Amino acid sequence: MTPQPPAAVDLNSDLGEGFGAWRLGDDEAMLGLVTSANVACGFHAGDPRTLLATCETAARRGVAVGAQVSYRDLAGFGRRFIDYDPDDLVADLLYQLAALDGLARTSGGRVRYVKPHGALYNAVVTHEVQARAVVEAVRRYDPGLPVLGLAGSALLRVAGAAGLRTVAEAFADRAYTPEGGLVPRGREGAVLHDPAVVAERVVRMVTTGEVAAADGTLLPVLVDSVCVHGDTPGAVDMARAVRAALERAGVRIAAFAGAE
Amino acid sequence: MTPQPPAAVDLNSDLGEGFGAWRLGDDEAMLGLVTSANVACGFHAGDPRTLLATCETAARRGVAVGAQVSYRDLAGFGRRFIDYDPDDLVADLLYQLAALDGLARTSGGRVRYVKPHGALYNAVVTHEVQARAVVEAVRRYDPGLPVLGLAGSALLRVAGAAGLRTVAEAFADRAYTPEGGLVPRGREGAVLHDPAVVAERVVRMVTTGEVAAADGTLLPVLVDSVCVHGDTPGAVDMARAVRAALERAGVRIAAFAGAE
Amino acid sequence: MTPQPPAAVDLNSDLGEGFGAWRLGDDEAMLGLVTSANVACGFHAGDPRTLLATCETAARRGVAVGAQVSYRDLAGFGRRFIDYDPDDLVADLLYQLAALDGLARTSGGRVRYVKPHGALYNAVVTHEVQARAVVEAVRRYDPGLPVLGLAGSALLRVAGAAGLRTVAEAFADRAYTPEGGLVPRGREGAVLHDPAVVAERVVRMVTTGEVAAADGTLLPVLVDSVCVHGDTPGAVDMARAVRAALERAGVRIAAFAGAE
Amino acid sequence: MTPQPPAAVDLNSDLGEGFGAWRLGDDEAMLGLVTSANVACGFHAGDPRTLLATCETAARRGVAVGAQVSYRDLAGFGRRFIDYDPDDLVADLLYQLAALDGLARTSGGRVRYVKPHGALYNAVVTHEVQARAVVEAVRRYDPGLPVLGLAGSALLRVAGAAGLRTVAEAFADRAYTPEGGLVPRGREGAVLHDPAVVAERVVRMVTTGEVAAADGTLLPVLVDSVCVHGDTPGAVDMARAVRAALERAGVRIAAFAGAE
Repeated sequence: MTPQPPAAVDLNSDLGEGFGAWRLGDDEAMLGLVTSANVACGFHAGDPRTLLATCETAARRGVAVGAQVSYRDLAGFGRRFIDYDPDDLVADLLYQLAALDGLARTSGGRVRYVKPHGALYNAVVTHEVQARAVVEAVRRYDPGLPVLGLAGSALLRVAGAAGLRTVAEAFADRAYTPEGGLVPRGREGAVLHDPAVVAERVVRMVTTGEVAAADGTLLPVLVDSVCVHGDTPGAVDMARAVRAALERAGVRIAAFAGAE
Repeated sequence: MTPQPPAAVDLNSDLGEGFGAWRLGDDEAMLGLVTSANVACGFHAGDPRTLLATCETAARRGVAVGAQVSYRDLAGFGRRFIDYDPDDLVADLLYQLAALDGLARTSGGRVRYVKPHGALYNAVVTHEVQARAVVEAVRRYDPGLPVLGLAGSALLRVAGAAGLRTVAEAFADRAYTPEGGLVPRGREGAVLHDPAVVAERVVRMVTTGEVAAADGTLLPVLVDSVCVHGDTPGAVDMARAVRAALERAGVRIAAFAGAE
Repeated sequence: MTPQPPAAVDLNSDLGEGFGAWRLGDDEAMLGLVTSANVACGFHAGDPRTLLATCETAARRGVAVGAQVSYRDLAGFGRRFIDYDPDDLVADLLYQLAALDGLARTSGGRVRYVKPHGALYNAVVTHEVQARAVVEAVRRYDPGLPVLGLAGSALLRVAGAAGLRTVAEAFADRAYTPEGGLVPRGREGAVLHDPAVVAERVVRMVTTGEVAAADGTLLPVLVDSVCVHGDTPGAVDMARAVRAALERAGVRIAAFAGAE
Repeated sequence: MTPQPPAAVDLNSDLGEGFGAWRLGDDEAMLGLVTSANVACGFHAGDPRTLLATCETAARRGVAVGAQVSYRDLAGFGRRFIDYDPDDLVADLLYQLAALDGLARTSGGRVRYVKPHGALYNAVVTHEVQARAVVEAVRRYDPGLPVLGLAGSALLRVAGAAGLRTVAEAFADRAYTPEGGLVPRGREGAVLHDPAVVAERVVRMVTTGEVAAADGTLLPVLVDSVCVHGDTPGAVDMARAVRAALERAGVRIAAFAGAE
């Protein structure tokens, strides 16, 4: 059965990922294109001044801020799995959530959802203990916060079971396996680079609920939000193409976690 | 003119200052003696799990939690002056304040005041720019939060001018210069070690508003709160002696920033 | 076949594991008891001033300095597995090795062996990729440096195959499984606490090449070096008891990596 | 008296200043233009893998590697003054020097000089205590290493008095005050942006020993090495223009600290 096209779709991107003298991506431009900003929280990236500026711009442009929580790993940009003690992970996530929420509130907004970053994102697709730690942190901080993650992941299952709202995302520029997973980065064809191809693909995902896997198989795909990358060369052009194609197709683009 | 003995005095101490495998001081014991806990915020000390545990114990024992904000300097324990750009300092302080407040709220309490730590504490006695940055951070985060600092400091003056409540503290175990400053650490007699002497001195400060300087001069001293150290050998005994002596002298011991 | 009792045995301990204001263990006392100091390298513990002081004391007392290399993880004290890219791991280990070696040379000694710390130590018992990264770093830095690790580990096997000298250690105070592994920490009886029992056990290991597993089974054990812990309460007493018992048994105690 | 034009001049630039996922400047291109690379040491920038790669490229291209030692301040990129205890500073500098030297040796080269970075560079123009700490670290590590710094600085004076070789640098793109200092960044005209102007100016400095201050005054300037920035937009073009102009003027460009 083909899912119904959604009344609206969200566009999310990872932002605020500079650190001190180092910049990454064009936050200013991306905040003009997406509806949800996954803002770093200082543990894999994001010095407080950058985070504050990102929250301020997001608030001004009506973009929803999400806490992109991470392992404590600046040197690895949060991209390597760390085998945390779960209680340490809960505390590290609470700290990040609270810090970003404070900066967002100071900027006239607030944190409206949570999305794990990098290796933590990948881990909680299957790692039950860490998925439960993420859910525990969100639940303790604010059980009203939705969790953004991969459809079918342990994270969304555990979050749903705990009564949290779950939001499923698809990736604009990543190839899917016939089983519905992502083709691992580094494998040929894992990442799509042509904005026109990516934009058409996103429109199809969103309007038909289907995506073609790398081998051509048609897969059902649940898409509450589409992730567009903010830090690659051409990221802004890609996001612009995706947004324009969705608008041309008559899809309303709106944050899943609206401002009250 | 001798100030009136206060209806009540607060006892504060620096807590939550471990980091990962490293412990510092006996938080559990100190939280049974003080009325206000200056809890580290992760930048000079305090991993999130330690901070969460300290906030939980403080909440359980009815001890007020203050945010002991600091320069970003784990290796120096926040004890070396850093010549921050003021906008960076405001953002770093907001981040810390928000992070600790989130942990405190998760624990059933909240941050009830702000006290700068270490070299930042010393800097804002005279450093106008950094004093203003501290005040700006508090004001933006929550203008209802009192600021705890040294009587006569730039910090308290700027905070007062900005409409923040200011709370002046005296040090139980530090010698004063005839001008009312602290005898610098490292100079002979800078730190008092005999619990009986310190306890008697604190009672006198609190009940008469006077303290004897190192040379015997009697100085007026404003004491809303008395700082007892939490991390030195004998810290717990010292705090216990001070508390007992105040109770014997009929002084009520209570947090200046009470629970609502 | 029972291995021959060694002509001499080495006693090693983890030292230099403070960081800034935080201290861990009594390095001064331990350096009077052991023959090899596994000195932290700054990534899980060890600020440079502490490391320099530890190297200086070690040189003065004729204790061999080893580089206790680690994952980059101050907050976790290097005790949580990190899934490093191998090239990042090689570079991180080279950096640590070189830094400590420089401090040791400045102090009149030099790094004489390498021992991985914490989660890296545990990982390279079986993790071939990380074991090869450790060996690659040692080989590139100085192929004359021995590697200290667990008998039977992937690390010692890979190191041996690469032409590095390998040194097998046993743990004074840890219970063994019947298969020759260590009973995991946290399980009952995993750590032995009675100095007399531990000392007797070490003497037996060293002189007979056998150790009784937790269930009483006698196991052959290869012991070039005995690891005594430096950071637990009673660590110094335990090390003193072990050393005294070995001396009473006529075993010569000497570093495996002697001063030239 | 006008100093004699030097037989040769060195071109130096700050390199290896990425960290993990963050890149800064085009090291590859700059290493084709300069003769000395001030390579970060990990405390203000420079993860070990980046440093190793930079050292390897430098060795391959015959560029001399210098240790660009810094305060421990990743978040501030070493650009804010830190009031270190001198013993801590000596140890932090030794650690950095040793770490980078190890990486350079592994790459077939070695550290051939020392240049302080950022706020430390600025501090030791006048800060005697920190200047002595830098000199003490260099002297203890290898008294044969030259120190690169500002002509007339406390650093070069103290280094010279301690018997270290000193190397004076001028800045290609910075305006000078009539007193011979640098016009502070942020003031109008502090940084020159036109490659042709900068190139002509460097040729004049090097061949006549004179530079025109911001007000037109001619100043004598001692130039063993010219610093060209590696991390600004247009940095590579600027360096290329400077190098080409020097070559056209018949100046030999060579590292001051040559390969043995």
